[in-house]
Amino acid sequence: MNDHPSLTLATFAAQLDFDSIPREVVERTVNLYVDWLGSALAGKGARPVETIARFARQAGGVPDAAGNGPSEVLIDRSRATPYFAAMVNGAASHFAEQDDVHNGSVFHPATVVFPVALALAQARRASGREFIAAAVAGYEVGIRIGEFLGRSHYKVFHTTGTVGTVAAAATAGRLLGLSPLQMLDAFGSAGTQASGLWEFLRDAADSKQLHTAMAAANGLMAAQLAADGFKGATHILEGAKGMAAGLSSDADPARLVDRLGSRWATAETSFKYHAACRHTHPAADALLAVVQAHRLAPREIAKVVAHVHQGAIDVLGAVVTPRTVHQAKFNMGTVLGLVAHHGYAGVTEFEQGFDASEIAAFRDKVSMALDAEVDAAYPARWIGKVTVTTTDGRVFDGRVDEPKGDPGNTLSRDEIATKLQRLAAFAGAASEAEAARLLANAWQIAQQAQVGAVFEASSTAATAAVAA
Amino acid sequence: MNDHPSLTLATFAAQLDFDSIPREVVERTVNLYVDWLGSALAGKGARPVETIARFARQAGGVPDAAGNGPSEVLIDRSRATPYFAAMVNGAASHFAEQDDVHNGSVFHPATVVFPVALALAQARRASGREFIAAAVAGYEVGIRIGEFLGRSHYKVFHTTGTVGTVAAAATAGRLLGLSPLQMLDAFGSAGTQASGLWEFLRDAADSKQLHTAMAAANGLMAAQLAADGFKGATHILEGAKGMAAGLSSDADPARLVDRLGSRWATAETSFKYHAACRHTHPAADALLAVVQAHRLAPREIAKVVAHVHQGAIDVLGAVVTPRTVHQAKFNMGTVLGLVAHHGYAGVTEFEQGFDASEIAAFRDKVSMALDAEVDAAYPARWIGKVTVTTTDGRVFDGRVDEPKGDPGNTLSRDEIATKLQRLAAFAGAASEAEAARLLANAWQIAQQAQVGAVFEASSTAATAAVAA
Repeated sequence: MNDHPSLTLATFAAQLDFDSIPREVVERTVNLYVDWLGSALAGKGARPVETIARFARQAGGVPDAAGNGPSEVLIDRSRATPYFAAMVNGAASHFAEQDDVHNGSVFHPATVVFPVALALAQARRASGREFIAAAVAGYEVGIRIGEFLGRSHYKVFHTTGTVGTVAAAATAGRLLGLSPLQMLDAFGSAGTQASGLWEFLRDAADSKQLHTAMAAANGLMAAQLAADGFKGATHILEGAKGMAAGLSSDADPARLVDRLGSRWATAETSFKYHAACRHTHPAADALLAVVQAHRLAPREIAKVVAHVHQGAIDVLGAVVTPRTVHQAKFNMGTVLGLVAHHGYAGVTEFEQGFDASEIAAFRDKVSMALDAEVDAAYPARWIGKVTVTTTDGRVFDGRVDEPKGDPGNTLSRDEIATKLQRLAAFAGAASEAEAARLLANAWQIAQQAQVGAVFEASSTAATAAVAA
Repeated sequence: MNDHPSLTLATFAAQLDFDSIPREVVERTVNLYVDWLGSALAGKGARPVETIARFARQAGGVPDAAGNGPSEVLIDRSRATPYFAAMVNGAASHFAEQDDVHNGSVFHPATVVFPVALALAQARRASGREFIAAAVAGYEVGIRIGEFLGRSHYKVFHTTGTVGTVAAAATAGRLLGLSPLQMLDAFGSAGTQASGLWEFLRDAADSKQLHTAMAAANGLMAAQLAADGFKGATHILEGAKGMAAGLSSDADPARLVDRLGSRWATAETSFKYHAACRHTHPAADALLAVVQAHRLAPREIAKVVAHVHQGAIDVLGAVVTPRTVHQAKFNMGTVLGLVAHHGYAGVTEFEQGFDASEIAAFRDKVSMALDAEVDAAYPARWIGKVTVTTTDGRVFDGRVDEPKGDPGNTLSRDEIATKLQRLAAFAGAASEAEAARLLANAWQIAQQAQVGAVFEASSTAATAAVAA
């Protein structure tokens, strides 16, 4: 078969070896994994997540009499087949809006890659090195496909759903040891299932969880089918009736194979500091800079203009008056209000105050304006610019070139651990002691001879309970 | 909530009552169901179908210790959860290219509607009247959405995969007794998962089975989630970031609600006579008319020009030299060669002779040409026109206005029964006696107080075996 972008990318994913990944990329991947664990735990108790979990239990039957499938469902520590574990963990980890994002592709890799990596690594007793290599394969593939599909794609499609399906297939295919041509089959079966529309956003509907759940599950399915001989389209990405043809009007095939093996896109991934849509973060950090520099109290602020890229207006513009916490995370005024009042827009701040009267009042002071510089830099760089007018007529301009969590302003392991503890506590998914044990274990994942359970102690307890 | 097309259509599907469906539409629906059963049986042994079935068994665990889930998998008479039964029966029934098609929407309703209707009716012990109403809801919804998305959609997307997801949700939602607003949620969760690209066709890949499997399974999932409170986008069809926005450039919202309750699109559905892509049927029947009228032997034919619509060229043009039976079904020359030699292009004719030397030789005599009249009539009418030139220089024009199986030239119950027997025997899915028993039962489905097993005797035998 002649070389072409889909094949080149599939071959890279199939052959990616742990030893070829630079040490600092491995370290960053471990950080991304631990960061993801916090988000997965944070989905516990969320209605859409629990609904998908109920569906999975009903659709999947019970894996064995004791309910002990090979793969861990993190919100309730139950066990399932890899398919359903990936589905439920995929649903859970995109709920709190705290999972990672790659700026240039506007793609959230962790929520579709790690559910698959964890479920299959547990089922196949893979090593930590295999786990890391599979995760990096998913990140590198997904990020490049997101960049390839371009800005036109993201206008209508939730890239994490569409591209995420192929990223999940790359991760699953790597853990299953697919050959390059089998990996190409997996890409074909995954890419032809690419879906996820932004229409749900205006209704505060639950589709976001469905998109990540099914991207993870469908990608895993595509790889398992490929391992069993199921054939996929060989040019699913760039072909005349492939993903770009159907889902984009500005696709650039060169992006698919951009510096494979030398540029590590995984390490370009940003952590989310605020628990809100990433499009709000640059302005939030810029406002924070102004508020801190000039010691402004919220009541002193008369008006905030957030100078943003068009993508922010496209995604955030739909929500005027947020009715739910989730919708509030897509509302610039709410996010800036929380930042002005609390210095931070985290899960607890949203849950307790997104519709508080002072936040609603602040929301009405905020507007967005398209900014030529910010828009030109996007999506490679997410510059934050705000203009703040005070009640006594002063005007301050605030700016950040890399919002907190971006590669040049990344989170430390301590900050990631604190974030996980906060998310686990918020959802009641783990006690502080459990989270500490889990963290100690998770930081070591790349060295583990066999990827074990996230909740080791609890699994033992559960086994003991069944035995009793 | 204000009325809008998605809501109107969802309300119609949720409230469709058996007694409101004209008797002749019910009868036609029973015919479509029986016709579908034949196609579902014909998938037995097909590699992609069996691969999906293996995946389902692996992903779903075992529904209970005796392997007796509530819903029947027709290719092997096993039992599964509704989710996996719908997935496998959906994969199976689109394999032989013998399942039905609605011309105007270029949508194959049976293969996504009946797997869901049967799986849920069996699981919920629904009546035959509920089964029929649910099937008609799926047909009416899917056909209208296919018409709505227009010709631009079908150029890149396999409508049966994309639209099929919502049709399956309508059928599932009706059987689950969803309210209109819950049905709207189901449409939202289904529509945002709409996928299926034509790219696989050029490679003879297996994606077609994946598309129908997952349209059925995802549609069923969407309805089950909606019943459990999962929210979907309320304008998934016509919204600014909905299906039409993402997947079409010539969508017409008026088609969504076209004469709901008075126009029965279900009854406009065509049965497939030849076991090939429907785009070949008009020319096949036109050639047959010429061959029969002039008693032409294949060796007397020097050249055939099939005068076709653009959609035929788009779909069939990709395949030049078919390498597999499945690909041959998308090759106009092969289909016309089989018709010239055997008077019929059925599953057996394809299996035994698609690459025979005389068929390959005939294939090279066939070309397609865009025809203004045929193209203008399409997709509402699929006119067949051929020009046949004989080796001794005679030129004959052949024409059919309604290919065999179309509503005005429909199949009789005897012809449907013969077709099912042929498909069941071809795949080894049922003996003649078993197929006869199954048929006797299936013709009565609308009168059944409870939709039982398709293979009644075998189920009894299986139960007895387990009891023993």
